[in-house]
Amino acid sequence: MLNLLILNAAVLQLSTDGTRADVLYAHDILIEGRRISALQPTGQADPSQFDQVVRADGKLVMPGLINTHAHVPMVIFRGLAEDVSIDRWFNEFIWPLESNLQPDDVYWGMLLGAAEMLRGGVTTVADHYFHMDVGAKAITESGMRGVLGWAMFGSQGQVALDTTERFIREHQNTGDGRITTVVAPHAPYTCDDDFLRGAARLADKLGVASHIHAAEMREQTDLSLQKRGLTPIQVLEQTGLLREGTIIAHACGVTPSDIELMAEAKVGVAHAPKTYLKLGMDVTPIPALRQAGVAVGLASDGAVSNNTLDLWEALRLCAMLQKDRARNPEVLPIAEALLIATRDSARVIGMAGQLGDVKPGYLADLIVVDLSGLHHQPLHSIPASLVYNTMASDVQTVIINGEIVMRDRQLRHIDAAQIVHQVNRNMARLAQRVPGQRIQTYQP
Amino acid sequence: MLNLLILNAAVLQLSTDGTRADVLYAHDILIEGRRISALQPTGQADPSQFDQVVRADGKLVMPGLINTHAHVPMVIFRGLAEDVSIDRWFNEFIWPLESNLQPDDVYWGMLLGAAEMLRGGVTTVADHYFHMDVGAKAITESGMRGVLGWAMFGSQGQVALDTTERFIREHQNTGDGRITTVVAPHAPYTCDDDFLRGAARLADKLGVASHIHAAEMREQTDLSLQKRGLTPIQVLEQTGLLREGTIIAHACGVTPSDIELMAEAKVGVAHAPKTYLKLGMDVTPIPALRQAGVAVGLASDGAVSNNTLDLWEALRLCAMLQKDRARNPEVLPIAEALLIATRDSARVIGMAGQLGDVKPGYLADLIVVDLSGLHHQPLHSIPASLVYNTMASDVQTVIINGEIVMRDRQLRHIDAAQIVHQVNRNMARLAQRVPGQRIQTYQP
Repeated sequence: MLNLLILNAAVLQLSTDGTRADVLYAHDILIEGRRISALQPTGQADPSQFDQVVRADGKLVMPGLINTHAHVPMVIFRGLAEDVSIDRWFNEFIWPLESNLQPDDVYWGMLLGAAEMLRGGVTTVADHYFHMDVGAKAITESGMRGVLGWAMFGSQGQVALDTTERFIREHQNTGDGRITTVVAPHAPYTCDDDFLRGAARLADKLGVASHIHAAEMREQTDLSLQKRGLTPIQVLEQTGLLREGTIIAHACGVTPSDIELMAEAKVGVAHAPKTYLKLGMDVTPIPALRQAGVAVGLASDGAVSNNTLDLWEALRLCAMLQKDRARNPEVLPIAEALLIATRDSARVIGMAGQLGDVKPGYLADLIVVDLSGLHHQPLHSIPASLVYNTMASDVQTVIINGEIVMRDRQLRHIDAAQIVHQVNRNMARLAQRVPGQRIQTYQP
Repeated sequence: MLNLLILNAAVLQLSTDGTRADVLYAHDILIEGRRISALQPTGQADPSQFDQVVRADGKLVMPGLINTHAHVPMVIFRGLAEDVSIDRWFNEFIWPLESNLQPDDVYWGMLLGAAEMLRGGVTTVADHYFHMDVGAKAITESGMRGVLGWAMFGSQGQVALDTTERFIREHQNTGDGRITTVVAPHAPYTCDDDFLRGAARLADKLGVASHIHAAEMREQTDLSLQKRGLTPIQVLEQTGLLREGTIIAHACGVTPSDIELMAEAKVGVAHAPKTYLKLGMDVTPIPALRQAGVAVGLASDGAVSNNTLDLWEALRLCAMLQKDRARNPEVLPIAEALLIATRDSARVIGMAGQLGDVKPGYLADLIVVDLSGLHHQPLHSIPASLVYNTMASDVQTVIINGEIVMRDRQLRHIDAAQIVHQVNRNMARLAQRVPGQRIQTYQP
């Protein structure tokens, strides 16, 4: 049974080597169940044979964006920690604020962030946060795809590992296959080696991947070397977490030999450039990572550092900051940036060959982007406009797992007005910072 | 006669020292002719006494954004010069492409760019381009405010100065005072000293300011020092162009002693950060300039480097890149960024005390911004959301010179669909690059 036809689209096609971004005009995309069954010139398919038809009428269709590292429910703290040093950001803002968290806050925050992401064309999120059982419920309801990990600090001990085990057993491969799960220790600076080893063993036992912050900036690497003669990446290697499928968030502070280790281990890197600029963290060395064969994907991080969950902004910052660092405009050209945003982001979350391309056999996670806005005109180059001009508000329709989740900018599964109402009710409570109350201390 | 009432707004208020950004809730703004006549709590004004009423209903009202340096008509070449070195960008793309320019292209391009800017909350543009007589016609028709200069290369000789003189005499203070004019030599590297002196004398004679590119990046400064022992800023000083009111575009390559000269001369700097990242030009040293007392304003540059004319993106990049360069998140905090976007941008274009504040006596160039989008929720901090979350598409209503130019996202003076149609007709001709045909050579 064919259930969905996208009619008369301009379809983005990228070469695997990152050198070409082309557009197939006047093509139809046929979707059968959760997957793309055909990509063919318009005119061959009979719309009456399909349950649903999305008329693209020349609009651009591409893979949905993949957010490879986020703390989505932190949208509830948006705007509460600005213009402060990283130490103060953690110790005086984030971790005190998070002592206000109740499971319901995570539920409504996850829904709010999912709604924002869907309206910006993000179809999958690798989320790393607390109370992930209700987080998974929210992602399931939203229609999004999630790679979800329940955040753990070493100070929580075995109870955190047990909670994660229960969470993974309950949620792995639920929601029509949209929900997968990972083991999510916070970072080498908040988890001791025994805890990291326990996390690695748990991932082994359950057959899932891991997701962790590491080498977020050079200072963390330097402090780790001073304290114990190992870089954070070496700590992950020694504790068993540096292995295929692990998502390493940020990695702005990795050394050349770390990069070799990461390439051998086949980990992926989640890159959230707006956060790095705002917190003065420097930038992930993307050309070196990519040259070594390490996949790099786009990420938003949480909205208390990144302010929005807009991956179009991350996409252009990703390309622009590497040009800036190299003082060379030829670095990270448009086709490569689009590859990072699609197939390479899929590799980072362990879904290479499943997501990130518009091709028969791939999961039908697709977005229809309207490039008729004045900020795209005249449209000399669609690939250039996707990287440098597209706004979240240009995304018109979103399909996930073969289902229409947003159509003509209307969300179909969740009620955004109700979500905003629920979150707003708790703003005053969420913004409180009680002196001395915090869930953790930053002291790398 | 009171002609316009903005009812029940949240009004942005900034302290002069850049340390505070506050919001006055439930206030009305009364507009009489071209100017704001009162700002007062809602409830005192009688809407029936006004020709027109804009209900803000809690939406944010702030000064319209000021684009302190652009080449607006270049939108017609958008996306045609990507991922190339600066030499190739000028010599193989921009200057060959500009040999295709006909006056009509400038007219339609200016209208298209004006429409894009209005829809993004930009109310004033300092534009530097060719065929500025038709450019002025387009800006006049659009309802925008323009500070317009007809771009001149030294190779054009006296004829360029004569054209500028005619242009200024014809257009200065036209369009109900919305159009002012400046003398606009291109740059020290494309104009010899005699030509720059001629431009300075012309500005003197006509009583107008100047607008020029200078010290765009450090390499230009170094080459100028090698060739003649003077920095580009020193060349401007010696030729009479470094004086109060001159707009210096970019200034990424200024030296500490240049900054002293600029402060003494009371010039302003136009800062277009997206262009600098894309072309690997490094970044304007904003903290040093501001500390010396030099006003810095936001700019989009042309759309062939910046891709859009979106000043919200410029605003956040302005703040984020200084944090990045200093590796210090405390640098260029939110209130200071908003001051740069408003009052300081007004200073750069010589309109301090006229534009950039919501205050009785100021010109009524105001925008209504809708912060109800999901990417702003929950709205813990309006100032933070303005800098880090706001998209051009959040701007709802635009008032310029006391007139409503866009209402509920509908442009009132120009027909965007017709403009796009006209520009699209000429895309193939505009994209041609004939070998050997270019209007100028880049060889700083």
